[in-house]
Amino acid sequence: MAYVTETTITDIVLERWMAVPDPRLRQIMQSMITHLHAFVREIEPTEEEWMTAIEWLTRTGKQSHDKRQEFILASDVVGVSMLVDCINHRLSGEATPTTVTGPFHVHDSPELVDGADIAKGAPGEPCYIVGSVRGLGGAPIAGATLDIWQADGEGLYDAQRGGDGAWMRGIFKSDDDGRFVVQTVLPVPYSIPMDGSVGDLMRHTEISPMRPSHIHFLIEAQGHRRVITHLFKKSCRYIETDVVYGVKAPLITEFKLMPAGSTTPTGKLAERPFWLLEYDFVLQPGENASAATPASAAA
Amino acid sequence: MAYVTETTITDIVLERWMAVPDPRLRQIMQSMITHLHAFVREIEPTEEEWMTAIEWLTRTGKQSHDKRQEFILASDVVGVSMLVDCINHRLSGEATPTTVTGPFHVHDSPELVDGADIAKGAPGEPCYIVGSVRGLGGAPIAGATLDIWQADGEGLYDAQRGGDGAWMRGIFKSDDDGRFVVQTVLPVPYSIPMDGSVGDLMRHTEISPMRPSHIHFLIEAQGHRRVITHLFKKSCRYIETDVVYGVKAPLITEFKLMPAGSTTPTGKLAERPFWLLEYDFVLQPGENASAATPASAAA
Repeated sequence: MAYVTETTITDIVLERWMAVPDPRLRQIMQSMITHLHAFVREIEPTEEEWMTAIEWLTRTGKQSHDKRQEFILASDVVGVSMLVDCINHRLSGEATPTTVTGPFHVHDSPELVDGADIAKGAPGEPCYIVGSVRGLGGAPIAGATLDIWQADGEGLYDAQRGGDGAWMRGIFKSDDDGRFVVQTVLPVPYSIPMDGSVGDLMRHTEISPMRPSHIHFLIEAQGHRRVITHLFKKSCRYIETDVVYGVKAPLITEFKLMPAGSTTPTGKLAERPFWLLEYDFVLQPGENASAATPASAAA
Repeated sequence: MAYVTETTITDIVLERWMAVPDPRLRQIMQSMITHLHAFVREIEPTEEEWMTAIEWLTRTGKQSHDKRQEFILASDVVGVSMLVDCINHRLSGEATPTTVTGPFHVHDSPELVDGADIAKGAPGEPCYIVGSVRGLGGAPIAGATLDIWQADGEGLYDAQRGGDGAWMRGIFKSDDDGRFVVQTVLPVPYSIPMDGSVGDLMRHTEISPMRPSHIHFLIEAQGHRRVITHLFKKSCRYIETDVVYGVKAPLITEFKLMPAGSTTPTGKLAERPFWLLEYDFVLQPGENASAATPASAAA
């Protein structure tokens, strides 16, 4: 056997880690060791820098609990979460693209009737989402499930409000024409949590910690690939700098400001101006490719 | 700006992370993102595999505390700790090479006189270390400090015994001829801790979790580079499969078994057989390159 030197060590480690019976784990470990050693050789860390990395990883683990996952946040801000999402959801160009689920999806949202209000007095400017769910050729999909969640007009999700009952979320069904209407409030931009190890790292950068205004959707219909995605507000000042890299061009949407006195999508006369978002989701035929996302446990 | 697709995302993330004022952190993050994305693109993880990795990292952080560092152990078993050590201690080929400090160094070892016994009744077969500390040209170095620590004959270190007073460790000084004598017991092979997330991973492999028999040394002398190293027992069955990759060819040493009735290095008549290890450490002129190792805090 060759003994360890700076020159030989990577080959020695790779050879040792061939002794992994499961071929998939073997492939992952070979690739991980190759890239990790290449990274270390490229940056040549001092022992102090190596220890800083060890301590950062340790803090990141310790800060995670059932309501917070700092390692997922770390994966988010270096674009790995979105890259994994892209790889797992290679859809037709015509289909609505996916984004990450994010940390704020709740599994037990109430089933609501078409046109129902998920805001129910939550702070924010009135907003309606009007749209449809369709197949690749444009045919309407009736009975599709739309699980919708978003931050309120102060940038807070249900988990952050912590009250009783559902806050800013609900499950809708498309009608016979594939259409749906949701009443809500306009989402606002918000910062990722900056009080953990990811925040510590971000403060050493000039990268914006903001997510642009968006609404989350988890859409399922029999015989079609599930789509987890966001719709983003085009004019949001953070639209080009989403800290978690969720913004795909087809998901940038116009929220139109309608004047007071207009008729709302639920057929009422609006006493105040309201925002109107119109969007047609396009689902690709198939089965759900991955049953592993947190969201799928509830699906 | 380009929006996110599987093709564009890595470039978008790299461009964003140019906004790091400190050039060293910028370099590290650029390299880290490049290699991490290349790894993800190479293995194409499912969302379930990605979540398994997130959970493994989280557990590894949570299992670490002031007496245990599971991330360092993870770094050890994929050869990163030794690679970092190699990079930080590029010595002349004639000089004694370094290895990792490991988790068992204690900062307050007692200063002992030449020939003193660090075992003092600890279990194990009697053993003497006899040697010298020299410069590159072979000239003896007087007054060099040798901080020595090892597992006892049952494979346990001071921190694992947890008793009062020092166990299997002490600080010696080389004499005017650069020489030193240490009385101890023969170290035996031992397993890395297998009850954490690193053990969980190792159990999916056929890689031996054992470290071959060895004794640790931290050697310092004015005007010379500090050397933290191990000496390994050549005939140990694990000499070619050290789980943390510490074995460098010049550190493999012969422990000779001397018969009862021989004279010990401290001039006594041996009633039982004893092991004899002879070694000459060679230090390179210079200052300590890195002041960041845990060991340096006590030096």
